[in-house]
This record gives sequence, structure tokens and C-alpha cells, in this order.
Amino acid sequence: MEFKHKILSNDLVIIGEVNKSAKSAAVGFFVKTGSRDETEQINGVSHFLEHMLFKGTEKLSALEVNKAFDRTGAQFNAATSEENTVFYAALLPEYVIEVTQLWIELMKPALRDEDFNIEKNVIKEEIAMYKDMPSFDVMDRCRTLHFDGHPCGNSVLGSEECIETLTAEQMRQYFTSRYAPNNMVFACAGNFDWGQICSTIEEACGGWQKQAATRILEHHAGSKKKQRIEKANLACEHICSISPCVSAQDPRRFAAALLAVIVGDSVGSRFFWELVDKALAEAATMHFGPMDGTGTLYSYIRCSSKNVSKVLDIVRCIFEDLLQSGVTEDELEKAKNKVLSALVIKNELPMGRLVDLGFSWTYLQQYRTIEDDVRAVKAVTAQDIHSLIKQFNPGDFTQLSLGPTDSGEATPRKMWC
Amino acid sequence: MEFKHKILSNDLVIIGEVNKSAKSAAVGFFVKTGSRDETEQINGVSHFLEHMLFKGTEKLSALEVNKAFDRTGAQFNAATSEENTVFYAALLPEYVIEVTQLWIELMKPALRDEDFNIEKNVIKEEIAMYKDMPSFDVMDRCRTLHFDGHPCGNSVLGSEECIETLTAEQMRQYFTSRYAPNNMVFACAGNFDWGQICSTIEEACGGWQKQAATRILEHHAGSKKKQRIEKANLACEHICSISPCVSAQDPRRFAAALLAVIVGDSVGSRFFWELVDKALAEAATMHFGPMDGTGTLYSYIRCSSKNVSKVLDIVRCIFEDLLQSGVTEDELEKAKNKVLSALVIKNELPMGRLVDLGFSWTYLQQYRTIEDDVRAVKAVTAQDIHSLIKQFNPGDFTQLSLGPTDSGEATPRKMWC
Repeated sequence: MEFKHKILSNDLVIIGEVNKSAKSAAVGFFVKTGSRDETEQINGVSHFLEHMLFKGTEKLSALEVNKAFDRTGAQFNAATSEENTVFYAALLPEYVIEVTQLWIELMKPALRDEDFNIEKNVIKEEIAMYKDMPSFDVMDRCRTLHFDGHPCGNSVLGSEECIETLTAEQMRQYFTSRYAPNNMVFACAGNFDWGQICSTIEEACGGWQKQAATRILEHHAGSKKKQRIEKANLACEHICSISPCVSAQDPRRFAAALLAVIVGDSVGSRFFWELVDKALAEAATMHFGPMDGTGTLYSYIRCSSKNVSKVLDIVRCIFEDLLQSGVTEDELEKAKNKVLSALVIKNELPMGRLVDLGFSWTYLQQYRTIEDDVRAVKAVTAQDIHSLIKQFNPGDFTQLSLGPTDSGEATPRKMWC
Repeated sequence: MEFKHKILSNDLVIIGEVNKSAKSAAVGFFVKTGSRDETEQINGVSHFLEHMLFKGTEKLSALEVNKAFDRTGAQFNAATSEENTVFYAALLPEYVIEVTQLWIELMKPALRDEDFNIEKNVIKEEIAMYKDMPSFDVMDRCRTLHFDGHPCGNSVLGSEECIETLTAEQMRQYFTSRYAPNNMVFACAGNFDWGQICSTIEEACGGWQKQAATRILEHHAGSKKKQRIEKANLACEHICSISPCVSAQDPRRFAAALLAVIVGDSVGSRFFWELVDKALAEAATMHFGPMDGTGTLYSYIRCSSKNVSKVLDIVRCIFEDLLQSGVTEDELEKAKNKVLSALVIKNELPMGRLVDLGFSWTYLQQYRTIEDDVRAVKAVTAQDIHSLIKQFNPGDFTQLSLGPTDSGEATPRKMWC
């Protein structure tokens, strides 16, 4: 493995980890923009724009873009989150330059009015589809409740109303200010020729203009509000709880990730043994959500309405015990094995490696080997986790619950008194 | 990469491909048994038995099995098909022996009456869940229609009635005859110590008794029957078509896989451009299903009832054109890129490699490197594919359609006259 990096004069960063023993490669653009970089008026534009990049450029129609990727056999896609828009492809080494050129071309989309108007309907359908998925909807709403006005609470998809009023001109302005060379990283991993990548990108992107792309960065302690929303068609209760935690830049992020596994991994965690294994909840998980300058621990529980009181009592006991006694050595050991397995297995694939490389540079301007991360995970002590819990008590959360129209059973509201 | 293999005196095969540059490993048992090895009376027993292996042994309770895996952080699972039951895990190198010992222990399940009776309900729920998924149900029913009495038409899950009457004693007999050392392969891939693996397995499994585990092997040309089943709650038409094709042992399997990609890959295929891109069908895909001594090409199309006639007309034209003119060089080139990308990317992971190694031995008693498969794909010519089409005409198929209660529109039945 050999790490390479180069910064062009317009601040476009190119990074690569060459692994000549790999049989494939992965390439992609990491654009540091997402829903938290949107104003209320244009909420949803980052995700909508991601779709629009596949609708063609001055040179290529959408059909030609499709056929050009298809020809290479590359496995390609894009994704938008609160903080990032990523365009990536896993492919055979012989197509690295061709697909890189294609991504470069797509980074200058035509953003035609007619395509914008057609795609608007696709976006609205996607919003409707996710609204119908309570496990997604509850998280989205709870994040908004938690961040309470802070842009980290913006929905990635945006609301139907906001997408309806969004104009192509607003999108073009957003595009110009955010898809700037100084706000993106091109990354590659696996088997590729670094020199060729650099000259390809330098030639095509060297003339791109820098922009003042900034982001509002401040830690947010969370509203700690509680809310229950009723929906007539729901069969069970969906409960999301969010507490503040360390950021993607904080060295304690490894401790936070381990804590989430100990409390809420899908099997073998405290939530699993106390709630799922006892058939009190169908699902009960916790994840760590590191972000730029802030972070969250969020949990999702699905249970029948009649079990809500009992479930929330148990959750409270779990959090009280954590605050009191921290985690056990045995729990920590098991969680480390899980985190290390997942980390190492994911990074065997150039595509998995690409994601870690790209985000490591985006958040830390740092190259981290897999070994760096393995060492950091192994170094976490039960004491580190207990200190983290004492500073960021997971029991002190914002909570949003989506459930059926009140059945007369004890509601979560009673529990929150 | 170094291939190793050893056959114990009871014919248990151990194979491994050592890749010291990998950071993880994968291990698993490939048992050559599935629904095609069942009689009508015990249909579904292979899949049910796969579940029961996790319910404990004489030494370990189900809880202890769960905790033992959990400790290692391994990503483990099992799967049952018409022909195979596979137990696999991806893991860190330091847990290879521990997890191998765990799989060995699980291969001697207790099969207790009480666990059997409880798990029966889980299996019945799984059957009900899949029955509610028309895209799955239509394939399952169409395979049964196609194989028309041949055991390859047996459903993997079995019917609720059959599971209801199945006894624990029948399962124990099936287990003894099928989970025999001469009917299974232990495989490992990635970073592991071959000597340690061999001594672990030899010591624990060397005493297992051989059995007369056979399989009815004969090619089946398919019934070519047509059937439509109405379901009141369906919103659109689900159409499955199956035509006979070459087996998993046939050198022409690479040509057959490429043909399926050309006709029915989810993007860029003939089905895609003629049906999906034109918004006549929501989904239209084709896959090659190589089996032991036989094989199928199967396609799945989902469209609104009003488009059925048009869709089936287009499908007929596509197949007629293929029979007449074969495929183009350009189509073949694109399909090769897709197949090669998927093959190479999958095999970067020890887990992906394990699957190919295991099945290659199960079906061919052969070690094939990734390069062997890459060469075989590259060597296929448009002429090879045309010859295959002439011998196995994909337009001459069995077809089963699941759709809403007849709306008065032209039905598929009319098309089949």
C-alpha cells in the first residue's frame, strides 16, 4: 500500500492509495456539501443536484452518460448525506481513466430547465416513498427536533413543498458555490496508475475556479425535546432517541463507536439481550453519528404499543447503569472484535477503502492506514468509555416517537414526566 | 495465492486458498444438499434443518452458540438453495480456528423435539412472508411448473402443509444421510494457517461416518406449460419465464451467463432499453441458473396489467431476433465488462472468494483461479452465444404469471395462443 496525494493550485485535492496486489480499483469525487449547507428555502437541493449530475452535460445527454458507464462495466452510484455528496465507482483497472474522465465530465452538469422539471417529480416520489417508511421518517423527524433550528437538523431529501418551489436557477447558484475545486476531493484506491490519474485530473480540472465555500460549524447540545406523533395507519411504535456526542474530528470517536455497539448492536448488545431477545421489541439498535464539528448517538426502537412503557423503563435502566458503572471489560472486548472485523473486512475491497480514504481526508485532512484505525480501536479502555458517558450522557436525549392513534395504553408521554 | 487441498479417509474434503496479503479470512461448510434432494413428504426439510443447526448441540445451548459467535466478531450466516446448504463466516485471522471449531460443533446438532416444534412456527412465518412477495412467489411457482415433477422443481421453503406434518424424526434421518463427510466440503480463503486448519478438522471430523448420499441427476427440458394465477390483492402483473439451459458443469456456462446479461441485465440490456426505459415495465431481468446436471435461463417481468400484451409481444420479438441473428459484438463486449467487473470485485473479498472456491469444488471437483474464470469469460465469442441460443431457444419457455383478478384487458393467455 502506498499513499499519494497532490493539491492543485485551485486547491482541488487528489488522494490515492495504490495496492498493486488488488485486482480492481475504485475512484470517486467527495464533495463536501449536503443538507446542512442548505438554507431553509433550498432544503433538499444537494440531493436533487446529485440526481441532476446524471442528467447530462453540455457534451453528453443522459442517455450517453448511461451508455458510457455501461460500456465499462463499472459498478457506480452516488449518495447524499447531511454533509457529503459522493460519486463513486468500483471497476476493473483498465477502465480507471475512462471512468475518471466520465466523473470529471459529470462534475460540470448542464442543469437544463426541462431536465430539472422532469426530475422534480422523481424527487417528490422519493420523498413520498421514504415518508411511508416509519423507521426512516422517525429518524429524520427526530434529527430535526434534536438540532432544533441548527442546519444539521435539515432533512436530506427536503420537504415536498420546498422541492416544489425550488427553481433551477437556485440550484445552479448552489452548484457553483459548492462544487468548487477547493470544496472537493478526488480519491482512488486499489490497482491504478497514480501518474496517469494526476495528469488526467490536472489537465481537466486545473482551470476550475475556487469559490468561498464555507460551512457553519458549531457543536450543538441538542434540544432534549420529547414529542409523539400519531399516524392512523401504523401498527406499532417507532421510537428514535438522540443524544449529543463527539465529532468526526474528536479522538474519542473510537470510544463512541464502541459504546454504540455495546449498547445497541443488532445482536449481542444490551438492547438486544434486554429488549429483542426478551421479545419486548422487534428492533432496538444504537449508532454513533460523527459529524463535522458535532456528533450524535442515536437509537431506534420498534415495539408494540402495549410494550412502550416497559421498553422505555428498561432503556432508562440501561442508561442509568451505564452512567453509574460504565461498560464491562468483557463487553468492550466483544465490541472491539465486532468493530475490528467490520473495519478490516470492509477495507479489503477497494470500494470500502475509497470511502474511508475520502472521508478521512474530508474530515481530518489526514491519511490514515487501516492499521492506524485498528490501533485506535484497540487502545480504547473501559475507562475511556465511562468518561465519555459521563460527559455525554446517552440517557439525556431528544426523543421522537411515531405510533398508532392512542389506544388508551400507557403512552410514551407518561414515561417522560 | 496458494491453493491447498486434502481429502480425509472418510472423504471429507478440505480446500483452501491462502492469501497472506489479505487482512481477513472466510471459512465455511458447503453441504451438498437442498430441496432437490427431498421427497415430497419432507419438502422444506433442508432449509428447516439449516435453522436447527443454530439451535444448539449436546454441548452448547442456542444461547451459547449465539454468544460464542458474538465473542469473535465474525460476520456469519447460512443459506439453503435447491442444491446446497452453506454455513459461512467472514472474520479476523486470529479467530479462524475458534470459528472453525464452532462450525464443526454445529455440524452435530442436537435436533431436540422441543426446539423443532418451536422453530416450526418460525419456518411457517417465513413461508407466509415470502408468499406475500409476488416477485418471489412467481419464481417459485414457475420453477415448479417448469420442472413438472422433477425434484429440481421443489420449493426451498416447502409448503406450510408439508412443514406442519414434518416430524423431528424425519429430520434426524435426513440429517444423518445428507450431512455426511463424503457429502460436504470445508473451505477457507484469505489469511489463515493451512496446517492448523487441517489438524483441527482432521482431529474433530476424522471419525465422522460416510453415508450413501446420492442425488438424482438428469437434465430436464422443462414442461413449457403456461399458466396464469389471479390474486385479488395484486396491483400489477408478475411474469416469470423459464427455459432450459446448460448445467453448472458445462463449459458453455460462461456463454449462458453473458447471454443473460445481454438480454436482461438490470440496466443497458435489451429488456432494459425495450421495456424499462420505455416505461412499459417496471422491472425486466434475466438470469442464468446453472444447476447440477441441468440449468435454466429465467426472466422476471413486472408491468401493469394494461401493458401485458405489448410487453409479451416485445419479449417475443427480442427472442426471435436472438434466434435469428444472435448478439452483436458490441453487446458482447459490454456484457463481458460487466461480468468481469462483478467477478473480480466480488473475489477481492475472502468471503466472495470462499463462495467461488466452495462451489467450484462442489460442482466440478476443481480448483479454479480468478484468472481461469476471467480467461473463460474473455474467450466467449458471439458465435458461441448464437450456437447456445440455437440449441436452447430462450423463446421456448415455461411461463407463469401472477396478476390481479382479470380486468377485461387483453390477458397473457391470449398472447400464448
